[in-house]
Amino acid sequence: MTKTLTMCDSSVVLVLFCMVVLQIKGSKLIWARKHWNPPHVAMKHLKPLKSSLDYDNSENQLFLEEERRMSYLGFRCLEISRWVVCGLIGFLTGLIACFIDIMVEQLTGLKYYVVKENIEKFTAGGGLSISLILWAVLNSAFVMVGAIIVAFFEPIAGGSGIPQIKCYLNGVKIPRVVRLKTLLVKVAGVICSVAGGLVVGKEGPMIHSGAVVAAGVSQGRSTSLKRDFKIFEYFRRDTEKRDFVSAGAAAGVSAAFGAPVGGVLFSLEEAASYWNQMLTWRIFFASMISTFTLNFFLSVYNKNPGELSNPGLINFGSFDRNFLLRNRLWVVISVFVLTCECGGPPGGLLGALFNALNYWLTIFRIRYIHRPCLQVMEAMLVAAVTATVSFIMIYFSNACQPLDVVQGEDYPLQLYCDDGEYNSMATTFFNRPEKSVQNLFHNPPGSYHPLTLGVFTITYFFLACWTYGLAVSAGVFIPSLLIGAAWGRLIGIMLPVFPLQIWADPGKYALIGAAAQLGGIVRMTLSLTVILIEATGNVTYGLPLMLVLMTAKIVGDYFEEGLYDIHIKLQSVPFVHSEAPPTSHWLTAREVMSSPVTSFNRVERVGTIVDLLSNTSTNHNGFPVVVSNANGEEPAKLCGLILRSQLIVLLKHKVFVELARSKLTRRKLQLKDFRDAYPRFPPIQSIHVSQDERECMMDLTEFMNPTPYTVPQVSARTHALVPHCFFFNILAFFFLGGWTGDSEGFGQIPPGRKLLPWTQVCINSTTITGCLVTRCPSFYSNIWVTQTPEKTAHFLRQSTKLYLLLKEKKKCFVAGQHE
Amino acid sequence: MTKTLTMCDSSVVLVLFCMVVLQIKGSKLIWARKHWNPPHVAMKHLKPLKSSLDYDNSENQLFLEEERRMSYLGFRCLEISRWVVCGLIGFLTGLIACFIDIMVEQLTGLKYYVVKENIEKFTAGGGLSISLILWAVLNSAFVMVGAIIVAFFEPIAGGSGIPQIKCYLNGVKIPRVVRLKTLLVKVAGVICSVAGGLVVGKEGPMIHSGAVVAAGVSQGRSTSLKRDFKIFEYFRRDTEKRDFVSAGAAAGVSAAFGAPVGGVLFSLEEAASYWNQMLTWRIFFASMISTFTLNFFLSVYNKNPGELSNPGLINFGSFDRNFLLRNRLWVVISVFVLTCECGGPPGGLLGALFNALNYWLTIFRIRYIHRPCLQVMEAMLVAAVTATVSFIMIYFSNACQPLDVVQGEDYPLQLYCDDGEYNSMATTFFNRPEKSVQNLFHNPPGSYHPLTLGVFTITYFFLACWTYGLAVSAGVFIPSLLIGAAWGRLIGIMLPVFPLQIWADPGKYALIGAAAQLGGIVRMTLSLTVILIEATGNVTYGLPLMLVLMTAKIVGDYFEEGLYDIHIKLQSVPFVHSEAPPTSHWLTAREVMSSPVTSFNRVERVGTIVDLLSNTSTNHNGFPVVVSNANGEEPAKLCGLILRSQLIVLLKHKVFVELARSKLTRRKLQLKDFRDAYPRFPPIQSIHVSQDERECMMDLTEFMNPTPYTVPQVSARTHALVPHCFFFNILAFFFLGGWTGDSEGFGQIPPGRKLLPWTQVCINSTTITGCLVTRCPSFYSNIWVTQTPEKTAHFLRQSTKLYLLLKEKKKCFVAGQHE
Repeated sequence: MTKTLTMCDSSVVLVLFCMVVLQIKGSKLIWARKHWNPPHVAMKHLKPLKSSLDYDNSENQLFLEEERRMSYLGFRCLEISRWVVCGLIGFLTGLIACFIDIMVEQLTGLKYYVVKENIEKFTAGGGLSISLILWAVLNSAFVMVGAIIVAFFEPIAGGSGIPQIKCYLNGVKIPRVVRLKTLLVKVAGVICSVAGGLVVGKEGPMIHSGAVVAAGVSQGRSTSLKRDFKIFEYFRRDTEKRDFVSAGAAAGVSAAFGAPVGGVLFSLEEAASYWNQMLTWRIFFASMISTFTLNFFLSVYNKNPGELSNPGLINFGSFDRNFLLRNRLWVVISVFVLTCECGGPPGGLLGALFNALNYWLTIFRIRYIHRPCLQVMEAMLVAAVTATVSFIMIYFSNACQPLDVVQGEDYPLQLYCDDGEYNSMATTFFNRPEKSVQNLFHNPPGSYHPLTLGVFTITYFFLACWTYGLAVSAGVFIPSLLIGAAWGRLIGIMLPVFPLQIWADPGKYALIGAAAQLGGIVRMTLSLTVILIEATGNVTYGLPLMLVLMTAKIVGDYFEEGLYDIHIKLQSVPFVHSEAPPTSHWLTAREVMSSPVTSFNRVERVGTIVDLLSNTSTNHNGFPVVVSNANGEEPAKLCGLILRSQLIVLLKHKVFVELARSKLTRRKLQLKDFRDAYPRFPPIQSIHVSQDERECMMDLTEFMNPTPYTVPQVSARTHALVPHCFFFNILAFFFLGGWTGDSEGFGQIPPGRKLLPWTQVCINSTTITGCLVTRCPSFYSNIWVTQTPEKTAHFLRQSTKLYLLLKEKKKCFVAGQHE
Repeated sequence: MTKTLTMCDSSVVLVLFCMVVLQIKGSKLIWARKHWNPPHVAMKHLKPLKSSLDYDNSENQLFLEEERRMSYLGFRCLEISRWVVCGLIGFLTGLIACFIDIMVEQLTGLKYYVVKENIEKFTAGGGLSISLILWAVLNSAFVMVGAIIVAFFEPIAGGSGIPQIKCYLNGVKIPRVVRLKTLLVKVAGVICSVAGGLVVGKEGPMIHSGAVVAAGVSQGRSTSLKRDFKIFEYFRRDTEKRDFVSAGAAAGVSAAFGAPVGGVLFSLEEAASYWNQMLTWRIFFASMISTFTLNFFLSVYNKNPGELSNPGLINFGSFDRNFLLRNRLWVVISVFVLTCECGGPPGGLLGALFNALNYWLTIFRIRYIHRPCLQVMEAMLVAAVTATVSFIMIYFSNACQPLDVVQGEDYPLQLYCDDGEYNSMATTFFNRPEKSVQNLFHNPPGSYHPLTLGVFTITYFFLACWTYGLAVSAGVFIPSLLIGAAWGRLIGIMLPVFPLQIWADPGKYALIGAAAQLGGIVRMTLSLTVILIEATGNVTYGLPLMLVLMTAKIVGDYFEEGLYDIHIKLQSVPFVHSEAPPTSHWLTAREVMSSPVTSFNRVERVGTIVDLLSNTSTNHNGFPVVVSNANGEEPAKLCGLILRSQLIVLLKHKVFVELARSKLTRRKLQLKDFRDAYPRFPPIQSIHVSQDERECMMDLTEFMNPTPYTVPQVSARTHALVPHCFFFNILAFFFLGGWTGDSEGFGQIPPGRKLLPWTQVCINSTTITGCLVTRCPSFYSNIWVTQTPEKTAHFLRQSTKLYLLLKEKKKCFVAGQHE
């Protein structure tokens, strides 16, 4: 058969090419601007963060009364319902994974048969461009649906969702991230984008889906659907909800990769600094149920119930225990050295390149493609280009392979190959990417032509890079694995060309390459190693995988941050990394404290409260409650802490001293009222307080947390380091001491400790002289230093960078008030 | 062939039988005593605990100066050396595992050939008792060596070592537990006891070995060998050392079971409440290196380097993905229900029975067999009895199996079987138990006769129970697995006898049984599941294993504690469980505080210090440093915390104000001096202070920790709950507030939080009115309550129980001052 390029063919290709050129030209604008100032880009799209999660129960009188009323049996029941919720989370997550998998398989199969028939029709007679157009249109149509629902209905459902979940587990409440609507859009979106042939995976979105399921199930109600099942009411608070969300994320990982332990470690790596045995055990349970549910229902779907061979959406297939072909001592050692050198550095470099390209692309998108219809069009363009590129590569490739070498090719395409052969390039593009990864790992030596692999790597690399960040729900795991497996296998094939022997079959090199590429892009370490070990199902590969991931991370980190971190940063989320920035060692507490302290009296005028809450310049989320001395000379004494959300509930229910006196029968406010308002507390503006009511008084004693975290004040002459970072629950509380007038001590953050400013005011134990309120809506404008304007300026220059923009090197994305 | 019992045979059996009867009679004494009072038993053998580990760096001026001097590069180097140390730990642990494995194999092989030849000689002619005696003597000889070195040289090396490591990671410094001598005795002991045919495993001791290796390597010196390599000096402190010991324990688990992830989780489960990503990553690295080293060197030993098929000392062999034989939907579901019901409860029950029997046996041992020579004799007796019982069972069994059914029987014994057959019972006893476990898992249906399995289970159960707690180094993992696998397989075989179908092959039931039995005995949950998943190498088995372990634990916990917990309790270690006892919810802080507070002034008279340190009634390990007001009316203000060990170093170096003035050139005390004294600080009695020196003054400012953990005092009128439990590093710090005279607030431990009294004094931020000093040498005598004698009595009745004897139900092992 001959390849004939008709006029029509070339014109179609030309049009697509022009579209690409146009976009590239647009992006060049960025490069052209000499004094380009990225901060504005970020600031323009910076939406104020609602608030942070409240990781500590407010142990006020209501809370304690409830705890006291609760019997031992009550605590038992709670514990059991936690387990039930985790089981449900796992089950539903597994079901969703199963649904996505089946839908994708059906749609892909449908598409393949349509296109294959068409291609076969035109292969002989020419005019393959019709097939191309058909393919491109089909893909674009799928992607259009996926992009429209994401761009118009729920933009937060775009991307893999892992950055968002990382942020959530890190303690940042990103609006709408765990809502039902997000889940629906996510699931539908990922089906569309994978079926649309985009260079994406369906694994990342599973993690987000699991988290949403968890957030929904654990609350026993749906705020969106306005349906309250009156169950699990106890869990309606940030502390409990976050635990379940970590379980959901773990269940998602577990379903995606068949890696329950990896899921647990993912949750721990992203979420925890406190190891709670029972919680971990529950998370593990959710993960187990999740992978089992997926496995079971897929086996039912495959008409073979009980043949549990699909623990995850992707299976690496089983590798044999014998890592090497030759069994000589020096070979084993040198292979381990080579593994690191062949796998890690290229993985790190390519990963960094990928991330850098994607960073620039994302900035371009933030700047120019922020209208939903543009986003949809871009997604469709990418889909069309992906189809075209794939088509061109299939068209020009001569990678014919005999059909019998590979057992179980689902989508063999003969094209110009001889009978009994198939085009391996076509297979790689037509297959579900998961299957292609498996093939690269397990096909016998000789299944792939080096050129095919090389071209495939390059094309796929750029396509994947272009695709990530589109307004579609899609993950980057599978493309990374595929790119890595391709170049890994290429290295494995090429080694004998150089005067080097081949020590392991190319499939092993493909595995190493896949791990390196993935590690180079996402930079997860511990959990990724375990995920890969579980996916390969062989502990023998643990050490090489670990070494490769480590070197890839080290090499990659030298050039560029991880992909998720980049996207988190571009969303201007005050993400707190697990390690304090090295320069923070000498940052003193005094420098990050605000003054004067915004505080309330124990019995406070309603008007004062409303004014303070409405004041946009002091919109903290937590306020100290103090007892002033009668003469007002001595500084006020701290007696508790009250949250904005609590005050709003109090105002809404008009819990005023005067009203309580007049209506004796008035129902006492209970914890239930706070729970009912959770998690969508109304803004202060929506609460009407009449002029009369403004003069009423509110007694905060019952509702404040009488034991907020504080740091003691050092005695006057000790030039000691005051604040310690306490590790609490999943995050470090940053305790700040206040200082009395005569104190000369100043605080300092001990090196190597986790640095986390928090919503809660941090105050001296007895005397308030400063407070640190961070992560509140207007993080950027509400930090003052106690002393001088110079210090303020200094602080804004230093700490905003430190806190917000960790590891910022050359890119100066400082979002602050200074110029 | 006929079985002939000669006169000689029966007499030998009789003598052994009598010995057993005598021991049983002795143990009956315990039962006979009506008002038996176990406390005395425990108290008699209670050696004072040295102290607890110091989990917080004392951030005094010396420390801070050193940190300040350290460059960024210095911190980098430290980090790198931590990795190097972890790599070394993993490597050495792997080597030790390899050494033990090879030695055991060689010695067992030797023994087998000697005995086999002898048996074959006497099989035909009768007089097999000669063989029995030979066997018993051989075994006893091995065990004697093992028992002698343990009983006479290092008793702490006895048993599996897991309870000791649990305690160490829990924060209790048990003397000599991580010394070189312990390691040597442990390794030699475990080789002897396994080679001696005792019903023991070599897996448990690996964990202890790994921990010792870690403690040794990380310090860069050997105090026992008096050799200082002048490296890793920075790590000579409790905080760093403990981290390495957790890595060592993980490496041990990893080498024992080929389960690196399981090892990490073991460490976390036992050691951590704080999740430190870098630390976990390093622990994982050590585990990986450990399993790889073992794997590699075993492959070299097996003349097949690179064929890495031995990741652990025990391999379960590979299970297929298909858990079930029948693939019907309802079968799958009902099997999962059955799994829990067939596996969990019997496992839990048998485990509880095992633990209860072992508990009584251990008390008997503590009471009557505490002299080393008696211990050696008991060990020899057990060895002889084990040999005899095995022999009798082999003798009377007709479990002949054709030789070709099972491939690779290392030790087939023909005995009275036909040619081409072998005695499967003999194989079970002669094999290394690891191999027997594998056989039970993987031999095809029909390999075992149900009666063989039943008798084997019962015999092995009692032998294992008798053996654990002997003065030999040995673990209980393998015997548990073997017992469980035997009855699990029995259930699997018996199911078709009842009108129940067989749904899975008996090997799967054996696996479930093994997990259940092990879970029922040791009651580890999370880590054990992961270890078993890794050992089976198949994630599909995760859910059933997890369910079985959970039910086994729940059922077992209802009757009796876990084996390790029992032994920890019998050693009277103040072990702090991960959950607070339920009754502690209403325990107030005031009740556990001591008064008057033993404190020092910032500049204190040497005589006062020496007297206070020597005073046995106040032998706390941490002391508040205070600044008294001039007039003495106001309460003293806290300015720091100083440890007993620091004071001792200061006294040793005579850091007195007067001397500093007289000798200006005197070298300033550095952190190095404290490190050199670590970890074996001399007792105060060994430090000579002359009468003149007693009048000198000591300035503690430089050496005290100026920021000890405290809890603020609440304002006078808030009846608030003061103390929070803060989670710090691996354990919860129990912060106690002090109260000023006018305060009516009192403290209370919030429910569900970890309750941990600590060595450090817990004091009010400004004013000291009480302190809690626990886990100090005389834990039992040094807790007073602040207020009244009634409260003291009450407290001693309540809290000692609470703190020390968690979950004590009927057994009243209260070691306190009350009657």
